[in-house]
Amino acid sequence: MTTQNHHLVLTLVCEDRPGIVHAVTGAVVATGGNITESQQFASASTDRFYMRIQVDTPAAQEQFEQELQPVIDRYDIEHTLDVAGRPLRTLILASTAKHCVNDLLFQTDAGNLPLEVPLILANHDTLAPLAGFYEVPFEHLPVKGPEQKAAFEARVLQAVDEHDVELVVLARYMQILSPELCEALAGRCINIHHSFLPGFKGANPYRQAHTRGVKQIGATAHFVTSDLDEGPIIEQNVTRVDHTRSPAELMAIGQDTECRTLRQAVGWYAQSRVLLDGARTVIFR
Amino acid sequence: MTTQNHHLVLTLVCEDRPGIVHAVTGAVVATGGNITESQQFASASTDRFYMRIQVDTPAAQEQFEQELQPVIDRYDIEHTLDVAGRPLRTLILASTAKHCVNDLLFQTDAGNLPLEVPLILANHDTLAPLAGFYEVPFEHLPVKGPEQKAAFEARVLQAVDEHDVELVVLARYMQILSPELCEALAGRCINIHHSFLPGFKGANPYRQAHTRGVKQIGATAHFVTSDLDEGPIIEQNVTRVDHTRSPAELMAIGQDTECRTLRQAVGWYAQSRVLLDGARTVIFR
Amino acid sequence: MTTQNHHLVLTLVCEDRPGIVHAVTGAVVATGGNITESQQFASASTDRFYMRIQVDTPAAQEQFEQELQPVIDRYDIEHTLDVAGRPLRTLILASTAKHCVNDLLFQTDAGNLPLEVPLILANHDTLAPLAGFYEVPFEHLPVKGPEQKAAFEARVLQAVDEHDVELVVLARYMQILSPELCEALAGRCINIHHSFLPGFKGANPYRQAHTRGVKQIGATAHFVTSDLDEGPIIEQNVTRVDHTRSPAELMAIGQDTECRTLRQAVGWYAQSRVLLDGARTVIFR
Amino acid sequence: MTTQNHHLVLTLVCEDRPGIVHAVTGAVVATGGNITESQQFASASTDRFYMRIQVDTPAAQEQFEQELQPVIDRYDIEHTLDVAGRPLRTLILASTAKHCVNDLLFQTDAGNLPLEVPLILANHDTLAPLAGFYEVPFEHLPVKGPEQKAAFEARVLQAVDEHDVELVVLARYMQILSPELCEALAGRCINIHHSFLPGFKGANPYRQAHTRGVKQIGATAHFVTSDLDEGPIIEQNVTRVDHTRSPAELMAIGQDTECRTLRQAVGWYAQSRVLLDGARTVIFR
Repeated sequence: MTTQNHHLVLTLVCEDRPGIVHAVTGAVVATGGNITESQQFASASTDRFYMRIQVDTPAAQEQFEQELQPVIDRYDIEHTLDVAGRPLRTLILASTAKHCVNDLLFQTDAGNLPLEVPLILANHDTLAPLAGFYEVPFEHLPVKGPEQKAAFEARVLQAVDEHDVELVVLARYMQILSPELCEALAGRCINIHHSFLPGFKGANPYRQAHTRGVKQIGATAHFVTSDLDEGPIIEQNVTRVDHTRSPAELMAIGQDTECRTLRQAVGWYAQSRVLLDGARTVIFR
Repeated sequence: MTTQNHHLVLTLVCEDRPGIVHAVTGAVVATGGNITESQQFASASTDRFYMRIQVDTPAAQEQFEQELQPVIDRYDIEHTLDVAGRPLRTLILASTAKHCVNDLLFQTDAGNLPLEVPLILANHDTLAPLAGFYEVPFEHLPVKGPEQKAAFEARVLQAVDEHDVELVVLARYMQILSPELCEALAGRCINIHHSFLPGFKGANPYRQAHTRGVKQIGATAHFVTSDLDEGPIIEQNVTRVDHTRSPAELMAIGQDTECRTLRQAVGWYAQSRVLLDGARTVIFR
Repeated sequence: MTTQNHHLVLTLVCEDRPGIVHAVTGAVVATGGNITESQQFASASTDRFYMRIQVDTPAAQEQFEQELQPVIDRYDIEHTLDVAGRPLRTLILASTAKHCVNDLLFQTDAGNLPLEVPLILANHDTLAPLAGFYEVPFEHLPVKGPEQKAAFEARVLQAVDEHDVELVVLARYMQILSPELCEALAGRCINIHHSFLPGFKGANPYRQAHTRGVKQIGATAHFVTSDLDEGPIIEQNVTRVDHTRSPAELMAIGQDTECRTLRQAVGWYAQSRVLLDGARTVIFR
Repeated sequence: MTTQNHHLVLTLVCEDRPGIVHAVTGAVVATGGNITESQQFASASTDRFYMRIQVDTPAAQEQFEQELQPVIDRYDIEHTLDVAGRPLRTLILASTAKHCVNDLLFQTDAGNLPLEVPLILANHDTLAPLAGFYEVPFEHLPVKGPEQKAAFEARVLQAVDEHDVELVVLARYMQILSPELCEALAGRCINIHHSFLPGFKGANPYRQAHTRGVKQIGATAHFVTSDLDEGPIIEQNVTRVDHTRSPAELMAIGQDTECRTLRQAVGWYAQSRVLLDGARTVIFR
C-alpha cells in the first residue's frame, strides 16, 4: 500500500443472484484497487445477498463510486461507501451509570474505537466530570415527566441534525424511547440491555435473573425498535455466576459484560460490519 | 487416609443461626473424622442454611449418624448422609436423539460419572444398540396417544420403584410429563432444555433462536416441575454462533453444549452437590 | 439450487496481487455457478493470498476445472477442488484413551463430521469393541521397542497407500512419530495435544499444569511436524479449573476440551477450511 | 446483622490435621459470631490446611483475636484477621499503558474494588492526567539506566514504608524488578503478564503469539518473584483470535483480558482470598 492510496469500505445489499461478486470486483480491478478484506452472506430467510469489502485503491472515492455505478444499477444494490477508519459521529445518551460511557470514551481516546462523540446527552449530571476529562461536550436535561421527556427527545433529534449524527448509543440510558423517536432513529440507534435477551426483558433484569437462579448472566447489544428489547441483536456475551450472588453483585459482575458487548457492537457498526437482515443482523467480524 | 476409613458425604439444610458449623464439626471430631471438603451457604432469600461436607472417618456410617443425631435434632436439620462416590441409581428417559445418552453412558463407563443405570426407557427404539453396547437394559414403549402416554408414565413409576431409582434423567426425552409424574418425581428429575432459559421455552428452541438471531445458543439443565421449563436451574452453558447458521446447524452445534450441561448437572447431583433453595438451586461445586 | 447442481469447494493459494478474485469469480460465472460461501485472506507474514469458495454450479467438476485453468496458470495458483461434503478418508491412530476416538466415531456416525474411516490402527487393543460397535476396521500392533515401532509406522504408510488416506489423526496416540513419518505425512496429519501450547509441551502436560498451578487447562490441535508439539496450530480451547483439582482430575476435566478441539480441527480440515501459511494456519470457519 | 456488628475476615494456614474447623468455629461461637462465608482446602502437595471465614460478630476485633489465640497456638496457625471490605493500601507501578490503571482506578472509584491508592509511581508521565482525574497522587521517575532504575526501586520501597503499603501492583509496568526488590515485596506484589503463562514468557508476548499462530490469547496475573514470569499464578483468562489479526491487533484485543484478569486478582487479594501454597495459589473465590 502506498501512502497515496485510499482504503475504502464498501457494503452491498441486494437480491441474491449469480455474478454479483464478479461484477463488483470488476469495478475494483478497473480502479487499480486491491481487496484487503471481503465477506459475503446469502440469507436463506430473506433471499438477500450481503457483502462487505475493504479496498486499497489509488482511485479517489468519487472515481470508485463512478466505476461502481453500473454494477449498482444492474443488480439494484443498496450500498454504502466510506473511507476505512473514518470516525463515526456518535451521540451518546446516558443516565447515572458510568461504566459503559467510561468504556466508550476510554476506548475512543485510546484509538480502539473509531468514534467522534460531538455530545453526551444525559438525564442526570453524574457523568459531567467524566465527559469533561475526555473533553466531550455534555448536556444535562432532566426527564421527570412526559413534558421533560418530550423535550429531551426533541433535543436528541435536534442534536442528531446539528451534528450530522450517524449513530445514537444508549449507554445504559434507562429510559424507554417514544415510538416516534425509535422510528426516526431506525437502524442507527444501539442499546445495551443488561440480560441475555430474550430472557429478562424490561426492568431490573439482574433482579429477575437472581429470582430465576440463572447460572450465567448476560448482556445484549441490539438495535432499538419500538418493540421493547425486541430489536435485532448485534452482540451477546455471558458471565458465569452462582447462587451466592445477590442482585447487586450480579449487577456489578455484569457491568464488565455490558461494556464489552456494547463496545463490540458499536465498533462493528462504526466499521460498517453490521447489516440488517429483516429481524436479524449480519455481522461481518 | 487409611484403607479402613469411610469417606462420607453429609448435606444439611436448616434455618440459619449461629453455632451450626461448630456443632456439626464437633460430631465429626467425636468420630475421629477429618473434613476433606466443606462448603456452606446462607440464603438471604429463604433464610435457610445449606452445608455439604466430605469426611474421612474411621467410624461406620451408622456410628457417624448416631453421633450427629443430637445436632440434627437441636437445629431441626434436614440431612442426607452417604458414602462418597457411591453410584446413583439413575433411570434415563430417552427418545431418538443419541448425543446425551451416548455421553452419559460413555462417561459412566469411563468412570467420570458415578451412575448406575438400571434401565433406559424410550418412546422409540433408536437407542437400543447403543444401550446394548454399554450393556444397559433398554425398553421401548411407544407414546402415540394419551393411553400410551399414561402407560409409559406408569412404567416410569414402576421402574423407579422396582430399581429403587434415585434420579430420573430426561436425556432429550421430548415429551411433556404429566403434572402427576412431575409431582411424584419432584426434586429427583432433571431435564436438559436446548436453550438458555428463560429464553425460548417450549418447542423448537433452536428455530426460535434462529428467528430471533441470537449470537450465542445455550442449554439449561433444570429440575422438572409441572410448570414447563420453569423448574429450578442447575447448570447453563452457551456456545457462540453467527448469522450464517441455519436452525439445523444451530441444533448440531448446540448438542455438545447440551451433553456437557446435562452431564455436569447429573454429576453434581450424584455427588450431593445440588440442593434446592426455593425456586433456585445451591450448587456446591 | 436445483438437484442437478454440484456443490463444489475450491481453495486457492498464490502470491497476493490485484485481480485474483475477479478472475476466479469470472470462471464461476462462466459455468453458470453461484457463490454460496467465500472467504479470503492476504497474509502479511508470507505475502500470500488465500481463498476458499463454495460454488453451486450446474457444471461438472471437470468443466469447472477447465474453466478455471487459465486463471490458475495466470496467477500461478496452488488449488484444490472437491465436491462439498465428500467424506474425507481418514486413518485414526490410537492407544488406550477412548474419549477422542469415541467422539470422532460418534460424530461421524451422527452425520456431524464428513469422515470415512477405513481403519483405526492402535498400539493397544482397548478400543477394539468401540471400533466394532461403529463397524470400523480395527488393527492392533504393539509398539514396545524400536522394531515394533518401525513396523507400526510401516503399517501406517501402507494403510495410507492402500486406502488412499487423505488425513491421519492422532487421537491421543501418545507415541512420537519418527521424523521420516512426520515428513511423509506433512500437512495431512493432525495431533491433539492436551495442553494450551506452547505451554506444557512433551509428556504429562496435566501434571505440569498442576505443578505450575494454572487456572485454565487447554487442548491444542495441530499439524504434526518433526519438531515435537511445535507444528502449526489449528484450534485451541481452554476450561477453567482451580487449586482443588489433582492431576488426575485435570485430565478428566480436560478430556472434553480435547474431544471438542480435535473434532473442530478435523471437521474444518475435512471441509477444506484449513490452509497452511508458513508456521501458521489460515482457518476459514 | 445489627449495625453494631463487625464483619471480620479470618484466614488460616497450618499443617492439616483433624479438629481445626471445630476449634476455630468454637472461637466464633464464643464471641456470639455467625459465619457468613467459609472455605477451606487441604493441599495434597504441601500437606497444609487453608481456610478463610467471614464472621458477623458483636465482638471487637481484639476480643475476637483473644478468643482465637488458644486455637492459633494449639494448631500452630499462621493467620490474618481483618475488617471485611477495608480498603487495601495499594501502590501502583505503571509505565505508558493506560488500560490497566484506568480500570483499577475506575473500579475503585465505582466501589467495585476495595483499594486505597496512596500513590502511582511511573517511569513515564503519560498517566498523570488520568491519576489527576481520580485524585490519586502521581509521581514520575524516569528509568533510563541502572542508576535511575535503582533510584526508582528505592523510591518504591520508601513509598511502601511511608504509606504502609500492603500490595504493589505492576499495572503493565514493563520493567523487570531487581531480585532484591522481588524479595522485599515477596507475596505482596502482583504483575499482569500479557500472555497465557507459561507460554510466551518475557518480552513481546503478543508478537510471539502471532508468530506461533495461537488461536486464543491470554493474560496471567501472578505474584512477582525473581524468576521472571514464573511466580505463582493467581488468575488467567483468554480471548479467541484468528489468523487475520496482526500483533498490534492482538495487543488491542488482549487489553480487555489483561484489565479483567488483573482486576480479579487484585480484588481477590484485597479480600484475603489469595493464599500461597508453595509455587501455587489457593483462591477462595
